[in-house]
Amino acid sequence: MMQNFVFHNPTKVVFGQDTIQQLDQLIPTNARVLVLLGGQSAKTNGTLDLVRQALGNRQVSEFNGIEPNPTYETLMEAVAQVKREQIDYLLAVGGGSVIDGTKFVAAAAVFDGDPWDILTSWGKAVTRALPLGVVLTLPATGSETNCNAVVTRRATHSKRPFNSPHVYAQFAVLDPTRTYTLPKRQIANGLADAFVHIIEQYLTYPVQAMAQDRFAEGLLQTLIELAPGALADQPDYQQRANLMWTASLALNGLLATGVPQDWATHMIGHELTARYGIDHARTLAMVLPALMQVQRHTKHAKLLQYAERVWHITTGDDAERIDEAIARTRQFFESLGIGTTLRDYDLDERAIDEVVAQLIQHGMVALGEHQDITPDVSRRILSLALGAANQAA
Amino acid sequence: MMQNFVFHNPTKVVFGQDTIQQLDQLIPTNARVLVLLGGQSAKTNGTLDLVRQALGNRQVSEFNGIEPNPTYETLMEAVAQVKREQIDYLLAVGGGSVIDGTKFVAAAAVFDGDPWDILTSWGKAVTRALPLGVVLTLPATGSETNCNAVVTRRATHSKRPFNSPHVYAQFAVLDPTRTYTLPKRQIANGLADAFVHIIEQYLTYPVQAMAQDRFAEGLLQTLIELAPGALADQPDYQQRANLMWTASLALNGLLATGVPQDWATHMIGHELTARYGIDHARTLAMVLPALMQVQRHTKHAKLLQYAERVWHITTGDDAERIDEAIARTRQFFESLGIGTTLRDYDLDERAIDEVVAQLIQHGMVALGEHQDITPDVSRRILSLALGAANQAA
Repeated sequence: MMQNFVFHNPTKVVFGQDTIQQLDQLIPTNARVLVLLGGQSAKTNGTLDLVRQALGNRQVSEFNGIEPNPTYETLMEAVAQVKREQIDYLLAVGGGSVIDGTKFVAAAAVFDGDPWDILTSWGKAVTRALPLGVVLTLPATGSETNCNAVVTRRATHSKRPFNSPHVYAQFAVLDPTRTYTLPKRQIANGLADAFVHIIEQYLTYPVQAMAQDRFAEGLLQTLIELAPGALADQPDYQQRANLMWTASLALNGLLATGVPQDWATHMIGHELTARYGIDHARTLAMVLPALMQVQRHTKHAKLLQYAERVWHITTGDDAERIDEAIARTRQFFESLGIGTTLRDYDLDERAIDEVVAQLIQHGMVALGEHQDITPDVSRRILSLALGAANQAA
Repeated sequence: MMQNFVFHNPTKVVFGQDTIQQLDQLIPTNARVLVLLGGQSAKTNGTLDLVRQALGNRQVSEFNGIEPNPTYETLMEAVAQVKREQIDYLLAVGGGSVIDGTKFVAAAAVFDGDPWDILTSWGKAVTRALPLGVVLTLPATGSETNCNAVVTRRATHSKRPFNSPHVYAQFAVLDPTRTYTLPKRQIANGLADAFVHIIEQYLTYPVQAMAQDRFAEGLLQTLIELAPGALADQPDYQQRANLMWTASLALNGLLATGVPQDWATHMIGHELTARYGIDHARTLAMVLPALMQVQRHTKHAKLLQYAERVWHITTGDDAERIDEAIARTRQFFESLGIGTTLRDYDLDERAIDEVVAQLIQHGMVALGEHQDITPDVSRRILSLALGAANQAA
């Protein structure tokens, strides 16, 4: 049965070419703005210039250097700058890491107590935050239109999610042309990340949430259709516009309405990133096909629906259809140039022990829509994800 | 090419069984609340009692009698009550007509000047409104999660839409069990109304808005799957929950992002309702199949996509596929017990002249996604919608 739900997404999406200039209407004229940035790309590709032009005479300072998988340690430096400069508006210019980091800074800058509690409480301790806006440059995580963030504590290899309604961006400017200079690797990662976000909210057990299932299947089909052209040398507006909007819709809360959710692939993947520094999307591509295989009985009905509606698999018995759907999922990632086994990333059996130990240490001992992915089940998933030794040669 | 767009829907959806009690958290405790109602159903089926219980000790008064196709004349009585009683919060309890009417009251109660200007300006004259919330009892129009409304001036047979971001409901409570006492006629109308809302945002010309097309197709498929069970004697939670959420998603702004829109079926249908009092959804069912036929060349590409993805029509040449898709659309309405010709509603050739005259009088002279539906084209659509004389016998 469809579950009760609350859906409330107040972020204003401003989408299309030449929309950065609208920042002038979106941010109060008397705001003291901190622009938060990742690496150098927004500077070298001109996006930062457009942002600064649009902000006009406002007081604007910058915080540079939010890393992929943003760290608590770095973000606390930004918090110090916010306090020092009496900043009252945050503007994230970047992808999911910059946006996630900015959400944490928004909450931590006005938090009473130890800001690490924001993460240990999964965000429940957050009661207010500075207002924030987003200029998105990397379509992938959907962070621009949701209230989730993930922060890593470097010292402890601890990668922790939190969410709070207080950290929704007030607006998100999505200009597809600002993605034209992205490396192919990032576009591939974005496709894979969005794909798995949808799967986590869809591939569980049926609750007759008909519209939500159709939306999920529609977004998966869109990503599959986009994939062959995604790695072309010349960026294409249609391609980028569709990827950008699809990745936002994949995790803006809509697909999650009234349905069970999994997220085990993410939790296991986070440990792989925290321990070995592997790109987030690539960890998902390792874990997901193995998880589908290990959980094929509890996900039986939805796997068959996925096989038929997303991959149009209509022959074979149930087991064969499910095998084929899992194989197609793996091929999708591989077609993007993303390896799907631990060995593809030069990991071996030791990684299984290390990741399982981290899952236990971080309390990730009952994952998935049935909370039945214990550390033993995670071990089976990782073992299956290892890949054949000769493949690594 | 996908068009630039702004998407901003701030309404909080509270969905599921026993959610009316959450009104206590949703409305300020010191609010002076006016509950706006349609006919007697909310009183006789217990919904009003649940609302009053949830509102507790707040000051609550009622305005009864907002009619289907709410009239300016009636709504101005509510405006007078709001002013007389210094109401500061409006709560619509009902379906699309009550919600639309409440939006108008919210804007008119604080409007400087002649409130009819709200409608002649299509809503542009609205600069503020009283806060409002919704308890939905009839899934159909999507008004609960959008900022549109339609108001009729009885004196002039004038049915006019307006929209304004100021009239979004702050929240919409959607409890599927509160629809159980609806007459079958209203459920049928709801399915037809939602279906045409989707079509108006989908069946135009392709702009490669991939996710939006998939969403529209998914919602149309959902309505088609729901239809056979919709008129069953015993209401079913799954059925009603899916209809309720699908009808909201059909017109919450999401499908319209970045795409051209039509709305000619609605504009012509409005004149049929204003002149003859025919149910809104039934006027749409009359106009749409005829409009698809008359506009089949400008809608060629999308009609073929609709045929394939929604109706799974894969044989025949283009013209045959389009014919079949139009026939299936008509059959969908007929399967709900909704007639699709003017003669089904005891109208004859004179109605064509009368409706065309009204379209001209109301300035509806360049309708559709290409603004090419002139009064002459509307006449052809209405002539085709007339139906064979012997069918009426």
